[in-house]
Amino acid sequence: MTGMFITVEGGEGAGKSTNIAAAKAWFESRGYQVTLTREPGGTPLSEQIRSLVLAEHSETVAPITELLLMFASRSQHLAEVIQPALERGDVVICDRFTDATYAYQGYGRGMSKSDIAVLEQLVQGDLRPDLTIVFDIDPKVGMQRAGARGSLDRIEKEQYAFFERVRTGYLELAASAPQRYQVIDAEQSIENVELQLTRALSTFLDR
Amino acid sequence: MTGMFITVEGGEGAGKSTNIAAAKAWFESRGYQVTLTREPGGTPLSEQIRSLVLAEHSETVAPITELLLMFASRSQHLAEVIQPALERGDVVICDRFTDATYAYQGYGRGMSKSDIAVLEQLVQGDLRPDLTIVFDIDPKVGMQRAGARGSLDRIEKEQYAFFERVRTGYLELAASAPQRYQVIDAEQSIENVELQLTRALSTFLDR
Repeated sequence: MTGMFITVEGGEGAGKSTNIAAAKAWFESRGYQVTLTREPGGTPLSEQIRSLVLAEHSETVAPITELLLMFASRSQHLAEVIQPALERGDVVICDRFTDATYAYQGYGRGMSKSDIAVLEQLVQGDLRPDLTIVFDIDPKVGMQRAGARGSLDRIEKEQYAFFERVRTGYLELAASAPQRYQVIDAEQSIENVELQLTRALSTFLDR
Repeated sequence: MTGMFITVEGGEGAGKSTNIAAAKAWFESRGYQVTLTREPGGTPLSEQIRSLVLAEHSETVAPITELLLMFASRSQHLAEVIQPALERGDVVICDRFTDATYAYQGYGRGMSKSDIAVLEQLVQGDLRPDLTIVFDIDPKVGMQRAGARGSLDRIEKEQYAFFERVRTGYLELAASAPQRYQVIDAEQSIENVELQLTRALSTFLDR
């Protein structure tokens, strides 16, 4: 595969969407073909699976069921969107990927990280993002911003404590592989966040 | 867990439903509480997942996606139906279980048996059926019987060669662990099949 695989992570209200649009424009202005996509989702079937994960259910969704559905959506997304785009040589920018599973399901819900690692290896083989940008924000600030956008889904309704664990998860993941992750403080002004983003992308391209 | 976990396997048209009803009646006449269920399915969510697996899709369903959906349905079914029933001490009779994944997805579609084994261990831990009854039938005979029942779903439309591989799969699985499996020739008369079934159940209870 000859393309570049970039994933963007961060809690609710960290400004991911705005910054993903900026990253796309940044690569395109340098002549790159960009494929923008998101997890979980990305194909009709993986969106249907995503809907099953997010819906309210009359039964308790077993943690392992939620994990398997997340990875089922991901494997379809990889096969139909991400891998073909990387094979074309595109820059693939993906709004959340497996780091989100570690952060939300692993750190957030306390699901087994070794189970997640088993599924990661099964579904992705050796494919890992070339660069992961983490927009870091205090969850209280982030949730206020996200709440202002409208109704919250089942996962967004979880308490702040959950989002504190998610944030810790992202920061620990980033610390464990600093050559792959770039953490950006998303509580700064929009201008400063975007400046740090473009610096991170430049550094990445120069490697 | 104190109950007994019995799974019933076999190709299309092998008479599983009739024989499952007979097995249920046999245990009930001996004073056992029986929980009857089926794979994939068994709970509202696992039935929704089952529908996703069986539906026609505009995109190609990646083999690993199909496997993950099968096991997502199974994990929910285990958590909500099978494990609680075994903990109550019931005889659980399940119409297809993980052997069907090995036979259909592994032998039939050529998916990796080691991937299936990874998911089996992840979802079931050490839980395996106490007894698995395989109703064995020539797929040509079985498909004629099943075809007479009405329209065929996506998986049933596969060619005979596929069902030959499925049959071989069941027979190899049974040969690999003869203490767990009972293979019954389902091309015999209904009376003889039921006689062999009740003999297999008696032998199992006497163990």
